[in-house]
Order: sequence, then structure tokens, then C-alpha cells
Amino acid sequence: MTESPGQGGKVVILTGGVGGAKLALGMAHAGLDAEITAIVNTGDDFEHMGLRISPDIDTLLYTLSGKANAAQGWGREGETWSFMDAAKSLGAPDWFNLGDGDLALHVLRTQALRDDRSLSDITRRFAQSWGITMRVLPMTDQPLATIVHTDEGDLPFQSYFVEERCAPIVRDISFMGEADAKPAKNVVAAITDPDNRAVIIAPSNPFLSIAPILSVPGIADALRQTDAPVVAVSPLVGGQAVKGPTSKIMTELGLAHDACAVAEFYGDIIDAMLVDERDDPSIALPEGIVVCHADTLMHSLADKVRVAKAALALADTMR
Amino acid sequence: MTESPGQGGKVVILTGGVGGAKLALGMAHAGLDAEITAIVNTGDDFEHMGLRISPDIDTLLYTLSGKANAAQGWGREGETWSFMDAAKSLGAPDWFNLGDGDLALHVLRTQALRDDRSLSDITRRFAQSWGITMRVLPMTDQPLATIVHTDEGDLPFQSYFVEERCAPIVRDISFMGEADAKPAKNVVAAITDPDNRAVIIAPSNPFLSIAPILSVPGIADALRQTDAPVVAVSPLVGGQAVKGPTSKIMTELGLAHDACAVAEFYGDIIDAMLVDERDDPSIALPEGIVVCHADTLMHSLADKVRVAKAALALADTMR
Repeated sequence: MTESPGQGGKVVILTGGVGGAKLALGMAHAGLDAEITAIVNTGDDFEHMGLRISPDIDTLLYTLSGKANAAQGWGREGETWSFMDAAKSLGAPDWFNLGDGDLALHVLRTQALRDDRSLSDITRRFAQSWGITMRVLPMTDQPLATIVHTDEGDLPFQSYFVEERCAPIVRDISFMGEADAKPAKNVVAAITDPDNRAVIIAPSNPFLSIAPILSVPGIADALRQTDAPVVAVSPLVGGQAVKGPTSKIMTELGLAHDACAVAEFYGDIIDAMLVDERDDPSIALPEGIVVCHADTLMHSLADKVRVAKAALALADTMR
Repeated sequence: MTESPGQGGKVVILTGGVGGAKLALGMAHAGLDAEITAIVNTGDDFEHMGLRISPDIDTLLYTLSGKANAAQGWGREGETWSFMDAAKSLGAPDWFNLGDGDLALHVLRTQALRDDRSLSDITRRFAQSWGITMRVLPMTDQPLATIVHTDEGDLPFQSYFVEERCAPIVRDISFMGEADAKPAKNVVAAITDPDNRAVIIAPSNPFLSIAPILSVPGIADALRQTDAPVVAVSPLVGGQAVKGPTSKIMTELGLAHDACAVAEFYGDIIDAMLVDERDDPSIALPEGIVVCHADTLMHSLADKVRVAKAALALADTMR
């Protein structure tokens, strides 16, 4: 629904897994009749037991198709575990759980990648099979791996996040392959589309889930260039992350636990930030970043729709 | 238990999947205290959804470790099917069912093969993990694929057997890769071991399960050279196959439905044949092949042990 040239209704969301998928689901149910594009972190992707796993893409596919295990935040509702039981009996590593139904995405993705299909193409076909109307794009089709530099050494993301349960102290985060990575097809065009209403940065972990997306050469520039307002939803509620290691990492990186630190991290790529109403109202964001306070907790679907609409409303004030 | 030089107690079994696995299980429970080696058909092996599947090896591993679905004849007892349900929802082919627990063997085998481990080595580790004391050897570590030439074209084994349910009329059977295949490590040494008591050809399909083993260059010669009696257990009971397409194929290949036709097919590689007592006793085997009639039906474990012992007893008469 293009309201006027340069003032269309399309929405783009940059997102990681669990928290970002909630906002994406809210956006999908916000009654928009223009295209929504999710640009998804693939810095967590890895190979395990010879299978290519894309955790954030999968979480989005499960969430948007109604298959997600909502209580757990990852994987499928009603999952079974016969594969893991058998694999363990054969001496396979047991630190990363692969559900039986979940394996379908991994097995079929691995096969298609070996047949030289792109991750974008594979993801599009998966989304289509499950009736997902949102356009789901990996940030890149090239390998770009998040490496967490800790006091216990440099760890690939899943080793840090799952195997070590985020226990090691984070000193720095880098992205292996970023020099050679290109944005996947349609990513830059989606961000700079003149018909965009808003580009939303989901309340995913800024350092582990959004930073990899921004590290792909060309994506940060596209965010700076787009005519659409770029609105970040703060991942903090009352100065704490709702889930995951965001707060812990902020401490370890010497950052304050507040929306200002997140806004400074995003810098000139964002125009505005939706900050939780429980946060200290006296904390000012960096100059030039518009702030709006709202309830950003997302439990029910109604919550998710409410936060999606609040982020869009904030964007609309900037046009 | 070596009784005397050249008269040891070791036993070798050449086997395919279901029927052969029954005899192998009987042999494992026959109270022998010498090594038993199963040399297993890999002509049915194929790649499906990017996974390397070795149906006969897997059936043997499940049977010998007590995990087999006895009623079905393949796969695991108590199997779940979440993977197939999810894979089908993503448009994957549904003609070959991969159980959730069963996937563990396929995923781990595929990964290990890509890491340049041999099928022999992988199979040995699987057997070890499951406490299987029988030595399970693939016939070869190279690809050697059974091709069924039918009135509907040339079909890879699984397409003929599973996808087409053995319906096409068989004109011929050949083995792709046989010129380059070598017996897997220890296969020839096992057959020609001077400490062998017997080499048994299991009552598997002679044309689809045993012929691929015999097609590996060097294996048929080893069977001719070994000092141990080579005893085939006829797959026919009352002139009919207990299970599978053996009888249908014999008709299509213009062969009589009797043990003589099977013995002629094996030719000079066998010394004796255990024939079911329900078969027509007037049918003579080719000259030089010793025959013994017995009840060869194997339902219970006791049946399997009984047939294994009968095959060994027949071998013992020839020493």
C-alpha cells in the first residue's frame, strides 16, 4: 500500500532469534497490507554432525508458521528426541540438542547447500512451504561467523552460547568472514526501498544478533542511506535484558545497562529508539536520536502486536 | 577356540538385510566361543536427502543390538516419525521413510564419510558403541550399486525395491562400480582364515543381496580358495521365498522355484546347501553339492539358533 511516493507502507525488520522473532510475529499480525521483510542474523550459523544449522532463521520460520515452542523460545512445539538419544548412544556430542522434527530443516538445508543452492533461496522455499507471507532474508549467503573473544579463549558463537552457557567473560566480539561477505540478494534493496514506512531493529541482542548483520559490508550504509526512519526497539526492560546474556555482556564490555548505551552502540544508523517505560526516564539518548517510552514486554500475541505498532507509530512521527 | 590347525571355530556369514540378519542373530546366540564375522551387502546403499544410507548394515546393527523392529523387519523398535512429517511439509520426497532414531546412523555415517573415514571403520565404531561382539564388515568400502534392469528401465535398488515395490519385471541385475571395487579390509582374510569352521551364505535374496557381495572382485575367489566348507542356507521354504521378491525374480529370470536353481546360481563357490524340509525332496542339487534338509523357518530366537546350528552341523560333516 503506497500512500505516496517515498511514503509507502513496507516494513523491514533486522532481527536475531527469540526476541526479534516475537516482534516479527507482532508485525505479521499488525494488520499491515504491505510487504514485510525480515533480515536475519546468520552469524550464529554453524555445522554440527555434518548438518548446516541456521538457528535464527529457523526460530523465525517456526515462530511465523506457528510451530515454535513458545515456552522454550527455540525449536518446535511437541518436539521428539529419538535422534539425540540414538546419536548419544553412538558417541555423538550432546551439547547441542537437535530435535527430530527440527532435523528436517537442517537435513534439507544441508543437502540444498551442497547442491549449490543459496541460503536465501533455500529459506524462501522453506517459508513458502509453510505458508509464511513475510519475506525472510538471511543477512548474507556467505559464511560470516560470530566469534566471541572471552577470558577462556576465542569461541564460535554456539560454543559460547550453548556449550559454555555464556559463562566465559566477554572481552570482544568479532565476525569471521565479514571482509568477503556480501548482503544477500534483496537485502540492500529492501532497506533502501523508497516505499518503506520504517526499518525496525528488533529487540535482539545488539552485540550478538544485530551487530553481525551490521558487519556485512553495505548493510550499515544502506541503513544510513534509506529515506525511511530507522527505529531500534531497546532490548532492555528496566535496565535488564528480558532473556539471554545482553546485560551480562554489557557489564563485561564496560557499558552502562541502559538504552543510551545501546543507542550509542547503534550510533548514526538509527533515527529513533523505542525504550521500555520501566527504564529510568531521566536517561537521555545521544543527541539526534528521538525516544519514545512504551511497554515493550512481549508475552502474548497482543503484546507483540502492540510493540510492533508502537515502533511503527514512532517511525511515523518522523516522516 | 581352535580345535586343531586349520580346524578352528571361527564362522563367517555372507548376508543381506532382514533374512540374513535373523541367521546372524541365531549364530550370535549359538554358544560359539570363536569370532563370528558378518560380511554385509552394500549394493543397496544410496544417498537420500543428502544422507548416506546402508540399509543392510543398519538392519544387522539393529538386529544384533536388540533394537530391531521384529514385526516390520527393518528399522528400530519404538521408532518415531517427526522428521518425516516435517520433511514432507517442506516438500521432501516421501517414498523412503527415515525414522527419527534411525537418522542417527545416517547423519553420523554421512559426516564420517565426508571426513574420509571408511565405511568399515564407521561400522566398526557403531557396532562397538552398541556392544555388538560380532565383527560386521561391509563387503567393500567403495561404491558398488545394485542396478535392477526392468521392463520399466534400469532402476537403482531402492527405487526398484521401495519406490516401485518390486513391481517392475526384472530382466537382469548388474552392479555399478564392480570393476573398481575392492573387498573391504579383512574381508578376504576372514573368508580364507585357516581357523574357520564354516563360511555360511545366509538365506538372503541370492540375486539382490548375495550376488553384489560375490561381484566384488576377489570375494568369489576367496570363497573358492578357503579350506572351510562353504554352506548356503536356501532362502526358499516349500519353493517360495519367506519374504521379499526372491520368488518373483526367479520367475522373471526364467528360473525354477527350487533350491537347485539357487545352488546352480551359486555354482562352484558353495560346497553344501541347507534346504528346507518342506521342499520337494526329489529335487537334486547340482553334482558335488552336499544337501541337508531341515526346518529353516526362523520366527523365534530359538528358531534362529536352530538354523544356525544346522548350517554349522552340515559344515562339520564336510571336514
